[in-house]
Amino acid sequence: MNDDLSLSLDDALVLCREAAMALGASHENAHALALSIIAAEAEGQPSVGFAHLIDYLDALAAGRIAGKAEPILTRPAPAIILSDAGGGIAHTGFDRAFADIVSVAHSFGLALFVQKNAFTCGALGFFAGRLAREGLVALAATNGPAMIAPQGGTKPVYCTNPLAFGAPREDGPPLLIDQSSSATAFVNVRAAAEAGRPIPEGWAIDGDGRPTTDAKAAINGALLAFGGTRGANIALLVEVLAAGMSGANWSLDAPPFDRGSEGPGTGLFVLAIDPKLVDPGFEERMAAQSARLAGDYGVHIPGVAKAVARERAARDGLVISKALHRRIVDFHR
Amino acid sequence: MNDDLSLSLDDALVLCREAAMALGASHENAHALALSIIAAEAEGQPSVGFAHLIDYLDALAAGRIAGKAEPILTRPAPAIILSDAGGGIAHTGFDRAFADIVSVAHSFGLALFVQKNAFTCGALGFFAGRLAREGLVALAATNGPAMIAPQGGTKPVYCTNPLAFGAPREDGPPLLIDQSSSATAFVNVRAAAEAGRPIPEGWAIDGDGRPTTDAKAAINGALLAFGGTRGANIALLVEVLAAGMSGANWSLDAPPFDRGSEGPGTGLFVLAIDPKLVDPGFEERMAAQSARLAGDYGVHIPGVAKAVARERAARDGLVISKALHRRIVDFHR
Repeated sequence: MNDDLSLSLDDALVLCREAAMALGASHENAHALALSIIAAEAEGQPSVGFAHLIDYLDALAAGRIAGKAEPILTRPAPAIILSDAGGGIAHTGFDRAFADIVSVAHSFGLALFVQKNAFTCGALGFFAGRLAREGLVALAATNGPAMIAPQGGTKPVYCTNPLAFGAPREDGPPLLIDQSSSATAFVNVRAAAEAGRPIPEGWAIDGDGRPTTDAKAAINGALLAFGGTRGANIALLVEVLAAGMSGANWSLDAPPFDRGSEGPGTGLFVLAIDPKLVDPGFEERMAAQSARLAGDYGVHIPGVAKAVARERAARDGLVISKALHRRIVDFHR
Repeated sequence: MNDDLSLSLDDALVLCREAAMALGASHENAHALALSIIAAEAEGQPSVGFAHLIDYLDALAAGRIAGKAEPILTRPAPAIILSDAGGGIAHTGFDRAFADIVSVAHSFGLALFVQKNAFTCGALGFFAGRLAREGLVALAATNGPAMIAPQGGTKPVYCTNPLAFGAPREDGPPLLIDQSSSATAFVNVRAAAEAGRPIPEGWAIDGDGRPTTDAKAAINGALLAFGGTRGANIALLVEVLAAGMSGANWSLDAPPFDRGSEGPGTGLFVLAIDPKLVDPGFEERMAAQSARLAGDYGVHIPGVAKAVARERAARDGLVISKALHRRIVDFHR
């Protein structure tokens, strides 16, 4: 008995888009969201793929995502594009600004996109990766509801506050870092709690601020930053870039993304730099250096596995469990 | 018996500058270097203060720093300033570009300074802090001779690759993060080796790639990144920003800063963003949020202690050991 279904990328896109539209999302918003879900699934990140779509659909149904929101884009400075997502999904404003971001980076050398008032954006590497595939160096940051406690603290003050970084390489996929500032992504703690599995030490504290390996207790407590004080400083840096620069909710003020009727109002920061204006040989140097780091020194080059997975998905399509497929289809009614 | 001397900031500046000039540095280069040393000392960072000046003086004497180098500044794009430091110290090019960086950030919203072919730049927070005190959000990165081994590797591939981040706050000193991508700064391992003290686990591996607590063995081995794979990815990000963007030596190709006759040819990346173009209330929000994080949640706000130390130094001057003072004065001859 096979519990899985195979879907072409196109069929998967329609599946996701129709579900969001059935819950009142505009075609543009539903399409932008569906593309990001399919991209995550295709790149081998199921925790921010189909499974994460359920979070978006629940949020659309509960009004935490404004399904018909129209992002308002302004240009507060020649090289800065500001988006007010109006309580909608994070991807639409970025999609609308994308051509401008690329063109401003080509013209001035660099461009900055900042956005406030959006729902949680899912895989942050999606934004940096798209710019890197256009030949740009990209740095992205986002925040959301508080989940990480500071060093020595007992209450969460930062979201998992991921940082993503992309850099193009000649004749190969971009280098693409995408990592949370927490010791692990929240979805891993949630998956352990749902499966009744313990979590490793160092991932979280319980509601009283004590270290815990109980995933359920961790969900009522707080995540810990990776790498102690230095990692907590990265979370703070992300907070200032994502929420400080955009005027979005600080993580402390962001309503939860999974309950209630108000969205988290998160921030998003995406910087793009055109490296070939400084050195036309940038991509060639990047390719040679990453081949050397990987080949001679055993360095893991992030982004390669994602690109391989994406090529495979383009060829073979995606696999989804029948149970998850059914949950998504049920939203169509 | 008192083993220390007190120096006014002005006297300390002259002490450092004259030593560099006695070794052939131009007045401009010697002055720029001396200002950075005094700033580090005043901010309570002695490891990159007077003690680090000795490294610079040794390097000037050996020709690893081109004392009379004139940085060549070009503008490959309207918002990017590129400096070729010509084998000199890192500070002169930044000093010459400083007013332009500020003015480009005000005009376009953001500005990027990238530099290649410089000596190790000492305290990286010096660059980000100066821009933050002008009301700009600043991100800085630099590389140098390889010292950090990758996850699971046995040979160093990255320098300590620090990242600095500054953000202005109303009625108070900027938030200022300045941290290496290694579990600890190299100077801490060197100090332990000189004192014959062991180092904590997790800081370093020996020459055979085995974890070690022997500081001398660590110096012949490699440092470890903070926070495992995520920290190693931060080191890689810094490497691409500092050396990739500027065309500087990769850390793997950088000659050592403390021996031989060739300088490390490091890279420096400094991004400046004008946050008030997006939100005139940025500094006020930063002040309120950092007061709340510190007051209600126990978050350590980096940069405050440095600002307090700097005020005290402006009032009371600096203290230097007679032994170190003598070492510097001896270079005057």
